[in-house]
Amino acid sequence: VGKEFESLQVDRVGDTIMIWMNRPERRNVLTRGLIKEITTAFAEAGDSDATGVILGARGPVYCAGHDFADMAGIEKRDVQRLLEKCTRMMTTIQSIPQPVIAMVQGLATGAGCQLVATADLAVASEDAAFCTPGGKGGLFCTTPMVAVGRTIGRKRALEMALSGDAISADTAASWGLINEVVPANELEDATNALLRRVTRGSPASKGIGKHAFYAQIDQVQSDAYDYAIEVMAGASQIADAQESMVAFLEKRQPTYVEAPRTSTVIP
Amino acid sequence: VGKEFESLQVDRVGDTIMIWMNRPERRNVLTRGLIKEITTAFAEAGDSDATGVILGARGPVYCAGHDFADMAGIEKRDVQRLLEKCTRMMTTIQSIPQPVIAMVQGLATGAGCQLVATADLAVASEDAAFCTPGGKGGLFCTTPMVAVGRTIGRKRALEMALSGDAISADTAASWGLINEVVPANELEDATNALLRRVTRGSPASKGIGKHAFYAQIDQVQSDAYDYAIEVMAGASQIADAQESMVAFLEKRQPTYVEAPRTSTVIP
Amino acid sequence: VGKEFESLQVDRVGDTIMIWMNRPERRNVLTRGLIKEITTAFAEAGDSDATGVILGARGPVYCAGHDFADMAGIEKRDVQRLLEKCTRMMTTIQSIPQPVIAMVQGLATGAGCQLVATADLAVASEDAAFCTPGGKGGLFCTTPMVAVGRTIGRKRALEMALSGDAISADTAASWGLINEVVPANELEDATNALLRRVTRGSPASKGIGKHAFYAQIDQVQSDAYDYAIEVMAGASQIADAQESMVAFLEKRQPTYVEAPRTSTVIP
Repeated sequence: VGKEFESLQVDRVGDTIMIWMNRPERRNVLTRGLIKEITTAFAEAGDSDATGVILGARGPVYCAGHDFADMAGIEKRDVQRLLEKCTRMMTTIQSIPQPVIAMVQGLATGAGCQLVATADLAVASEDAAFCTPGGKGGLFCTTPMVAVGRTIGRKRALEMALSGDAISADTAASWGLINEVVPANELEDATNALLRRVTRGSPASKGIGKHAFYAQIDQVQSDAYDYAIEVMAGASQIADAQESMVAFLEKRQPTYVEAPRTSTVIP
Repeated sequence: VGKEFESLQVDRVGDTIMIWMNRPERRNVLTRGLIKEITTAFAEAGDSDATGVILGARGPVYCAGHDFADMAGIEKRDVQRLLEKCTRMMTTIQSIPQPVIAMVQGLATGAGCQLVATADLAVASEDAAFCTPGGKGGLFCTTPMVAVGRTIGRKRALEMALSGDAISADTAASWGLINEVVPANELEDATNALLRRVTRGSPASKGIGKHAFYAQIDQVQSDAYDYAIEVMAGASQIADAQESMVAFLEKRQPTYVEAPRTSTVIP
Repeated sequence: VGKEFESLQVDRVGDTIMIWMNRPERRNVLTRGLIKEITTAFAEAGDSDATGVILGARGPVYCAGHDFADMAGIEKRDVQRLLEKCTRMMTTIQSIPQPVIAMVQGLATGAGCQLVATADLAVASEDAAFCTPGGKGGLFCTTPMVAVGRTIGRKRALEMALSGDAISADTAASWGLINEVVPANELEDATNALLRRVTRGSPASKGIGKHAFYAQIDQVQSDAYDYAIEVMAGASQIADAQESMVAFLEKRQPTYVEAPRTSTVIP
């Protein structure tokens, strides 16, 4: 990937881009700098020919959320700008065509928990935990709850939001906040195994599908169908879609050739 | 029911209409013909005085989804027409006043999985499985995810959509995609038992209620309440509603007399 | 609290307001009078400096829902008025700044089940059960399903709605309708323990956060973020928010001073 980051380590391993939050001594707190770097790293990953992205973290904490040193004493409009940048980071993760997995090795707090809720998928170590602690402090986790509240049930979201207490990885899995829990020493293997499962097939087709999922899921069902029909009919015309159908009918393995970014130019 | 179908077997058993997808040798793939017949069979069931509908299937596969022989090589506008017809089939199932149960004995794939997500309720054999395989191919299951994504949590929906892998009946039940899992040899009995539970009471009242549930569930809560109040106040005026209240107050069993289709003419 | 209620018992215990539905001989059925009193009690609790509210009930039944004696034989417009008042009761519970826990010791039926779904959180005795019985009668629980349908999955909501059958407290917990199940003799202690967990921190901040959660959760995600950013940036300016950040940075316990009702005057 080549670009230098201060608080991130970004590696390309085969077709995967590994983005590591790499300020363990600061518990990977979301400084303005880290938010900017994560956004940039995901935007670049989205433009690359990689087929999947993993967002991991170094150190005992996955991500401690917002940096109060950045936020204390500043005016409303500056908090607003900070939250807008944080939101752009979240929406960038959902906007790139590749599947994104949060690989969570420790505590994910506030906007760090929002990162987990925002990633398409999440795998966590048994040691991981998740909280939105503003509820027991003085600044409620209102923007994190946009993501967390759409991922788990309402009563459970309110319990996290109002109590601020951490839930275990097992609870997070049973509530649907994450996809899988594994022993700490299997975390990378399990995450890579899931990534392999979700990066098969045509990257171009998958990029169209991921975009459409987020675009339709909050809509009224009839609007969602109108939109989804339009998208899927367009997507059926790309070479990879035709290849998948013809290969199936000819009982042979398909070969996908579309450039991954076809996702933005559906017919 | 009398009407002849080519790919369906439709039986009336007491007050229940059994619709069997009956092309086991073609894995009940959703050809244009089958889509048309299912839509017709549900529309006719909706107009009948039956009180419940079961959508079952013959053979080892419940429904293999779209027929690539129908879709390969055709233009966008023709795919669009096909998906519109498929969507009309789905919305017809939700629009009829009777409870509809998908009775799933084998694999439900793509739009076949969408049928399960779309039915009001679903019971599956332990052998059943569920997948949206476009994610590992070249044509993402975008329209199926409208239904599947509204039925299970977001992370789980994305795992199904992006991986294309099948989930077991037990997993489907724990995620809320289906209501119940039973041994294969108990599938019909369990489905009939559930149908009996959901067809008690006034069919007219139930038809109004089912319609209103789907109409309100994607709305903003305040809009949903405005609408639900209007519906329920109207529904309180039908003879069956009055009978249910009076019988309760008089501590006797109610006798319901409304024509089932009252559902479309609430005061 | 001082005000006299006929069908409620309202106590202030420390910082908690206990609202007891207290017509056990009438199974706490939601007469016009009880609806009015619950609405008043919650509105007063919302204006008070209490930090949390528990909605409990006396007798073997938590709440039997609407009173058919109130509803039988009346015109549509009068049913509409009754349902509007009932809906105002529900929205008042969600509109007050304090966390509200339903403490459920017995059967919660129809609009009684809606009360449980509407409360921010719910704890139930092992003996409790939950149903929306209109589905097996003549008047479908259409307004209750606005709340219940937003709290549990769609298939499970339809099973409750169409069958009218009761689910156990364990099932309710696994579906996310309630937060916790405990033995009957631990119900009050467990509810108080949960209330303590959700009433830590700044009441002013929590009130803003609770309001924003309900306002954003049904919106399309991008609208939800626009709104949530505005709210959270404003909320960051209140004294308690600044205090929480400064105390964190200074590694000391925060002291919150905002009047609880700051929630309505965010900058």
